[in-house]
Amino acid sequence: MLIEGQPTRTIWPAADGAVEILDQTRLPHEVRTVRLTTLDDAVMAIGTMQVRGAPLIGVTAAFGLALAMSADPTDSNLLAASAALVASRPTAVNLAWAVQRTMADLVPLASPAREAAAWAMAVRMADEDVAACRAIGENGAEIIAKIATSKKGERIHVLTHCNAGWLATVDWGTALAPVYVAQERGVDLHVWVDETRPRNQGAALTAFELRHQGVPFTLISDNAGGHLMQRGDVDLCLVGADRITARGDVANKIGTYLKALAAHDTGVPFWVAAPLSTFDFSLESGLDEIPIESRSPREVTHMWGRLANGALAEIETAPTGSAASNPAFDVTPARLISGFITERGRHAARRESLNALRG
Amino acid sequence: MLIEGQPTRTIWPAADGAVEILDQTRLPHEVRTVRLTTLDDAVMAIGTMQVRGAPLIGVTAAFGLALAMSADPTDSNLLAASAALVASRPTAVNLAWAVQRTMADLVPLASPAREAAAWAMAVRMADEDVAACRAIGENGAEIIAKIATSKKGERIHVLTHCNAGWLATVDWGTALAPVYVAQERGVDLHVWVDETRPRNQGAALTAFELRHQGVPFTLISDNAGGHLMQRGDVDLCLVGADRITARGDVANKIGTYLKALAAHDTGVPFWVAAPLSTFDFSLESGLDEIPIESRSPREVTHMWGRLANGALAEIETAPTGSAASNPAFDVTPARLISGFITERGRHAARRESLNALRG
Repeated sequence: MLIEGQPTRTIWPAADGAVEILDQTRLPHEVRTVRLTTLDDAVMAIGTMQVRGAPLIGVTAAFGLALAMSADPTDSNLLAASAALVASRPTAVNLAWAVQRTMADLVPLASPAREAAAWAMAVRMADEDVAACRAIGENGAEIIAKIATSKKGERIHVLTHCNAGWLATVDWGTALAPVYVAQERGVDLHVWVDETRPRNQGAALTAFELRHQGVPFTLISDNAGGHLMQRGDVDLCLVGADRITARGDVANKIGTYLKALAAHDTGVPFWVAAPLSTFDFSLESGLDEIPIESRSPREVTHMWGRLANGALAEIETAPTGSAASNPAFDVTPARLISGFITERGRHAARRESLNALRG
Repeated sequence: MLIEGQPTRTIWPAADGAVEILDQTRLPHEVRTVRLTTLDDAVMAIGTMQVRGAPLIGVTAAFGLALAMSADPTDSNLLAASAALVASRPTAVNLAWAVQRTMADLVPLASPAREAAAWAMAVRMADEDVAACRAIGENGAEIIAKIATSKKGERIHVLTHCNAGWLATVDWGTALAPVYVAQERGVDLHVWVDETRPRNQGAALTAFELRHQGVPFTLISDNAGGHLMQRGDVDLCLVGADRITARGDVANKIGTYLKALAAHDTGVPFWVAAPLSTFDFSLESGLDEIPIESRSPREVTHMWGRLANGALAEIETAPTGSAASNPAFDVTPARLISGFITERGRHAARRESLNALRG
């Protein structure tokens, strides 16, 4: 998608054997490219959230394995690299999926063949992610088109939480892909953007990408969504996912559950958009079985942004020394979800419907 | 309650005919007293939220009328002052209640008698607020005591949203008064403090007062409360209110509705603590009838705090020029509320129970 009118992806192989990423910790204030040249660089980029979003961390892991194989294609390094990548963040299953898929390709190969195969796999996974997200966009745009018909062309208001746009993937996005496809097709849309504390992915990333894409949006505090739904100001909620269980429970950015409750209470459709790589059919109960990452308390007590003089700075908002807790995801039970949008179509949030997506 | 061990109120008459307040826009980083010497000062203090919290803005309005009567006790000034105060913030009904009550006292008096009567009324209302909040604390502490019995002395976890502590009143608070009374009585308590975006009253005010009072607390993002309730980590939600209708709908800080939904979904008791002055028996439907204040978008896009060097500064978190919307309150329907705690006792969230509180 676009930054200053230039088509851009979130990750790409550089000509010299490195990998380049857009540093998402500097957005929206600074558009900076970071070079990853080693496995450790990739692990660090995932852990510090220079890249984030379930699909994108999966693809980054594949490139991380390629970097590892360039350095040392032995079995022992392949295993060590896989373990380091899988451990870099616990909740999104796409990371493990990408590593397992790459491993399945590489393990049977003789060491000298692994470097080229790993790079080919990473590039293929990036391209597949783009295609899957575009398909999610088309499948989700049909939901928006139906609402447009019932509203007789009146502006449609979509609420989204966190960033499940193109910055969370290689391109197009998951939850925002239907918005972009609908925009292409001339639908009059407006997006309510949840700030998404504590890391402000809504304010920093979703607002950034909608702005550069020319989609009208309004930033709101995470507290405001329920009120807007009560007032009839939201036609549709669209969110992404970090892991989806066999029965349709969804782990997604902390606070998603609260918006799903409000949507359910007010009759607003609540759709989850994700590629097949986000489904984990080995799990049933999201609450009992999905590991929830706990991040630094500092993300809650401190905030980063731009001073009036243009300099970037971090401020502390709470009394110094305050204890803080920072669970990064929560689980939305399937009963609150209108359905799933994947690259294969739309599916009810029920085991029987999701079973068709296995394997 | 205590600041650095010193008993402190949020507002008090100074010896020289002025009124002094704690400037809540500077907390938690700076404890600063501001002097109000005119009606305009009082209106400004309410509008800029140097004083906030439904009970406290009511008492501040009473002191504002006293300042106005000191300057000019004529009928026309009394009417103008009342109108200016009532218009300073729209949602909390305590403001109109305090102004109407003072007017009822002052209107029949000859002009020369109004100054002394207005000051006496303001001082009386401040003292009554303290007594009402202490009674709320005692009535609410009984709920906590029951939970303590069922948990056999294990630590009790209370979740609160925004600041309905002593800083929202003259002293003691509403939602936090039961916590302070339970603490006095030796109950082992811990408070989950919602940050409360966009103005961060949880991080700035609730964390500040709990810290100075020695109550253990953990700051969380507004997004985290539902997750904590799902995990069984919350025994009780306690919040304040800005206006309560005859049937028990509650306007309170934006985001309260989302926490009430989560409490209802997970079976966590959700109590609303407020003095009688917060009830508006002239209204039925909170959603249809309570005016919801819309505040500056800048409160959403900018944030204030302390830099690493100790200086206080404001940062912008969103892309410059982003549109933002800032509804300051939402409405929680009575069906989601376990009950009300007032200075008269505990009451079910039903018209029949609340009727007893009229008049």
